[in-house]
Amino acid sequence: MSVNALSDLRASPGIIRVHGHRGARGVLPENTMLGFVQTFNAGVQIVELDVLVTADGEAVITHNPALKAASTRDESGEWLPEDGPLIAAVTYDELTRYDVGGLRPQTEYGDLYPDQAFLSGLHVPRLADLCALVARPPYTDRLLNIEIKSDPTLPQATPPIPDLVAATLSPILERGLSNRVILQSFDWRVLHECADQAPHIPRSYLSYLPRPNAPMTVTIYSGSPWMDGLRGENLPQIIAEDGGSVWSPYFQDLIARDVKVAHDLGLIVNVWTVNEPSNIDQMIALGVDGIISDYPARVQRRLMAHGFRWQ
Amino acid sequence: MSVNALSDLRASPGIIRVHGHRGARGVLPENTMLGFVQTFNAGVQIVELDVLVTADGEAVITHNPALKAASTRDESGEWLPEDGPLIAAVTYDELTRYDVGGLRPQTEYGDLYPDQAFLSGLHVPRLADLCALVARPPYTDRLLNIEIKSDPTLPQATPPIPDLVAATLSPILERGLSNRVILQSFDWRVLHECADQAPHIPRSYLSYLPRPNAPMTVTIYSGSPWMDGLRGENLPQIIAEDGGSVWSPYFQDLIARDVKVAHDLGLIVNVWTVNEPSNIDQMIALGVDGIISDYPARVQRRLMAHGFRWQ
Repeated sequence: MSVNALSDLRASPGIIRVHGHRGARGVLPENTMLGFVQTFNAGVQIVELDVLVTADGEAVITHNPALKAASTRDESGEWLPEDGPLIAAVTYDELTRYDVGGLRPQTEYGDLYPDQAFLSGLHVPRLADLCALVARPPYTDRLLNIEIKSDPTLPQATPPIPDLVAATLSPILERGLSNRVILQSFDWRVLHECADQAPHIPRSYLSYLPRPNAPMTVTIYSGSPWMDGLRGENLPQIIAEDGGSVWSPYFQDLIARDVKVAHDLGLIVNVWTVNEPSNIDQMIALGVDGIISDYPARVQRRLMAHGFRWQ
Repeated sequence: MSVNALSDLRASPGIIRVHGHRGARGVLPENTMLGFVQTFNAGVQIVELDVLVTADGEAVITHNPALKAASTRDESGEWLPEDGPLIAAVTYDELTRYDVGGLRPQTEYGDLYPDQAFLSGLHVPRLADLCALVARPPYTDRLLNIEIKSDPTLPQATPPIPDLVAATLSPILERGLSNRVILQSFDWRVLHECADQAPHIPRSYLSYLPRPNAPMTVTIYSGSPWMDGLRGENLPQIIAEDGGSVWSPYFQDLIARDVKVAHDLGLIVNVWTVNEPSNIDQMIALGVDGIISDYPARVQRRLMAHGFRWQ
């Protein structure tokens, strides 16, 4: 086993890595155990997932600070009328009462993934559940790309960063999985806390450049609150100097020159979230290390079409 | 448990049934145990599959009379240079040496299913393997729509029809699954043999009308060799008078009047193979009983969008 996950995340001649985004959101309910298991069984080595922490300190696998109305039903099977309680405001036990197995019809979010299976009785899993899964055969060669969710503009939505990071690290360290995970965040304050608490676990710096009409508030620019005081325009250089191992830009932000800069600095480059075949082809041509996709099988097939493998 | 599978295959108010074609060919390798298991686990109640018989009399789950070059690798992992041996010419043991876990890049067939997972080490399963699976929890509510492959224009490609049918029935009867299966065929001689050997198992009559430049040789018309001597243009009426329970037309052959005729005669109407959202919507509007699709999750989602369920 390698000292950390990086050797299995770095591209090598003829190999580009595939990360299943939230499992395989295009075809299976996101951030669910069923989604992770079936994605692994379908031949994907690396899954990406999102972590938040409950009121009672449990690291759980879910993307939004509050339960999402478009993908959540209550105990009686009714769709949430609006986004639900903050994850940070409910206990893990309370959270298990919600069903996150399917997307609500005729919602903007639901319509984004028309091939996603609709299931009932699926709950937000604990990070400990997924760590237990990959600690046992046949999943002991699988890797987790764990995004810790935190927003510097919404500090009340998540616990203090030291607690958020400690809760995330707890099941990883308990299962001895430090060499099977990377930790990523848009909030680089979180990555700095990870460096303090678990310096041996590789850190991945997510970025999203500002653009006109950007649909997200997470934008990384010199002096942005997301960068925790770091400054400059050359993201790969900043990340390398900050001790990062991975740069994970939005795929449309990436240009060939920056791939070279990043690689010259020893960084791994993982792009998110690449779903369209033409965009997948562009990323293969750019020579990234890893492609994060809601359709990991589609990426594998595009890689094969170009003579590549993923493992 | 019902006396046969028909009650779970018939539409009822607000319910149209979903059949996963060859498992879920759009996303998982067709006619494989992994494909069936993951399709069931993703919430699909009915899977469709194809049966042929090996030289040593084993009913196996595969579609073409010969191993298909575009989806078969040999023991050393090399793609077959051309379509391989007839299933009827190899033993089951010999058949297990071939890998059917993935589609060959840059082939016409491979390009049809760009989201299908690529796996290695998957073999043509025995019908007995699938029967064993659904005989045990949690799959005891699942149904099998079993197509028996036979071509009256290629009699040498398959065993004599009595042997073909007997080999198919053997694992079904051994597991006591008569009430969980239907038997379908384009070759209605096979259905007549099924009526003789296992009259209690419902029979589904596949049809495909002739059209200019039809891509298939399987065309059903009055006097066609596929119809085993039956004559006439009104397929539902012929099928009902012949003791059939199900009519399974190509979806583009179906018109509203024939759905009504079939239903008035007590037939179930299952359409194959419906993948495009607009076509799925058309079949929902026509009021069919079952939709056979390579993308069963997509059909479920379209049903939900129209206020339907599938179970």
